Amino acid sequence: MRVEQLRGGVVEAWHEVHVAVVDARGRLVAGAGDPGLVTFWRSAAKPFQALPLVDDGVVERFGITSAELALACASHSSEPGQVALVRDFLAKIGCTERDLLCGPHAPLSERVAEDYRTRGLRLTAVYSNCSGKHTGMLALARHHGWPTEFYARLEHPVQQRCLAEVRRWTDVPAGEIATAVDGCGVVCFGVPLRNMALAYARLANTPIDPPLQFRIPHSAFRIVEAMLRHPDLIAGEGRPCTELMRAHPGRVIAKVGAEGVYCAVLPQEGLGVALKVTDGHAVASALALAAVLEELGLRPRPASLGPRPNVNTRGETVGELRVKGGLEQ
Amino acid sequence: MRVEQLRGGVVEAWHEVHVAVVDARGRLVAGAGDPGLVTFWRSAAKPFQALPLVDDGVVERFGITSAELALACASHSSEPGQVALVRDFLAKIGCTERDLLCGPHAPLSERVAEDYRTRGLRLTAVYSNCSGKHTGMLALARHHGWPTEFYARLEHPVQQRCLAEVRRWTDVPAGEIATAVDGCGVVCFGVPLRNMALAYARLANTPIDPPLQFRIPHSAFRIVEAMLRHPDLIAGEGRPCTELMRAHPGRVIAKVGAEGVYCAVLPQEGLGVALKVTDGHAVASALALAAVLEELGLRPRPASLGPRPNVNTRGETVGELRVKGGLEQ
Repeated sequence: MRVEQLRGGVVEAWHEVHVAVVDARGRLVAGAGDPGLVTFWRSAAKPFQALPLVDDGVVERFGITSAELALACASHSSEPGQVALVRDFLAKIGCTERDLLCGPHAPLSERVAEDYRTRGLRLTAVYSNCSGKHTGMLALARHHGWPTEFYARLEHPVQQRCLAEVRRWTDVPAGEIATAVDGCGVVCFGVPLRNMALAYARLANTPIDPPLQFRIPHSAFRIVEAMLRHPDLIAGEGRPCTELMRAHPGRVIAKVGAEGVYCAVLPQEGLGVALKVTDGHAVASALALAAVLEELGLRPRPASLGPRPNVNTRGETVGELRVKGGLEQ
Repeated sequence: MRVEQLRGGVVEAWHEVHVAVVDARGRLVAGAGDPGLVTFWRSAAKPFQALPLVDDGVVERFGITSAELALACASHSSEPGQVALVRDFLAKIGCTERDLLCGPHAPLSERVAEDYRTRGLRLTAVYSNCSGKHTGMLALARHHGWPTEFYARLEHPVQQRCLAEVRRWTDVPAGEIATAVDGCGVVCFGVPLRNMALAYARLANTPIDPPLQFRIPHSAFRIVEAMLRHPDLIAGEGRPCTELMRAHPGRVIAKVGAEGVYCAVLPQEGLGVALKVTDGHAVASALALAAVLEELGLRPRPASLGPRPNVNTRGETVGELRVKGGLEQ
């Protein structure tokens, strides 16, 4: 599977895509390229980094709302409303923006970025797309009485708790999970696409006969419910995760990762999806995910995620970006 | 050959590179991947689109300077000094900015782009990185008495003249040259990397025994001389073409193309280089070219074009972008 950029009738550039579609048993239902490719999960691991909030009783302790839980799973667009919600979440757990260890960056939404540039707004840690995840990590530390300093480090119990959760859901032994430092400073996890897809499939929690060995905790429902209820918080206006979830309400959770990774769960079908564009191209990964979801029955894909015209500086359409090939069984 | 992005010790993303190193006879001296890969030459074809200015007597007619000739071959950074020179060039041929058919875009230099954003400067056609090339095309039309309207169209004699020049230097028959519309609106040419490299090798004009069938016109000297004399105009402050040419004065002309294409000529060695990063990654293509040039004897590569640290939002170095592999004979 490839995403091709055409100019006139000629392929000018292309992006290789590897895909794994897996059921809750870990069976590879479909794939493309190398479903066993190991890469970093990064932002697509957020739902699993948020699970301890439910499992360990942090949600009850602080009265965390489903919107706040959704933001803990989100790569948000730094929209004013999203940032305000994260600030409330921080206040609720007795923290402030100064406790956040994520660094600032330009908003992932070009529209929001342009707006803030025009207004000369100073971007701080709470504007990071990961500020919800970081606030969740602070909440976890507060709840357990762990230090809120240095919570980003591998040896900190917050990261060890997240690692344990990743191991549990992916079935990859802890010793085989590669770790490195993420864009926002916390630990990120290198696992095969197939195992990322397995973790997402398990979130679907579809009854299977005979029942799975893996006991899906009730906490997973809370995460799934929070994400399904708040497509607007998972990413933001105009961004692919939000567009895909709005196009098929209740039928999909789509979660972008960094560097060309995309994951999804189809709760009704009981399937998890993980894909990687090898060169990290973000737009290509979103088009590829939309094509894969369409092949799995989520029709039609949103217009914004179909073949995308390539428009030059004069406003002329000179080619397009489009997915070529599909899933193999 | 690949450019790999590492996070920790793990390759997180990679960019495939195809390379052709060719002498003026068209002999493949070295390569990597598929030196016969067909792709669009785009901005790396500019020196050949500028050759008619010398060959047809346009330079003498209007008293075009070597700086103006360099700008006709350039993908400039829209620096104030560069834009002022293009405005002078336009005036010299009796045209104005309104005659330019290139569309506006953010400057290729992030520093210049940021400066203009801050100052609220309105970007017009003359700020296009291709405004020198377009001015050259207008000059060619003026000289021959062709209409200055619609000079971007394939059927216009300006584009036909450029096509003939591309055919002549690449040895690709006109019928086999794919054409499409470039980012700036003019015709762009799809040819194999090997033939792009041949065209650049011929610019070197190194005496060969027995002499070449291909008669290198004296005009080529003017283009080579103009580019070698003005590394600051070919791209701009801090950009790879300029850095490479400044690091090895007189020993190389490096010219970026769009979508991961890079070309170069080593006049002393009599070699032409063309490479393509298949996914179009611009930074990867610059690092790959620097590595290829180093392998061909241009040591050391500029520090800015060696392995590049990957720094996260907290300012931590979390990996690097680096070239893996090299030329094969």
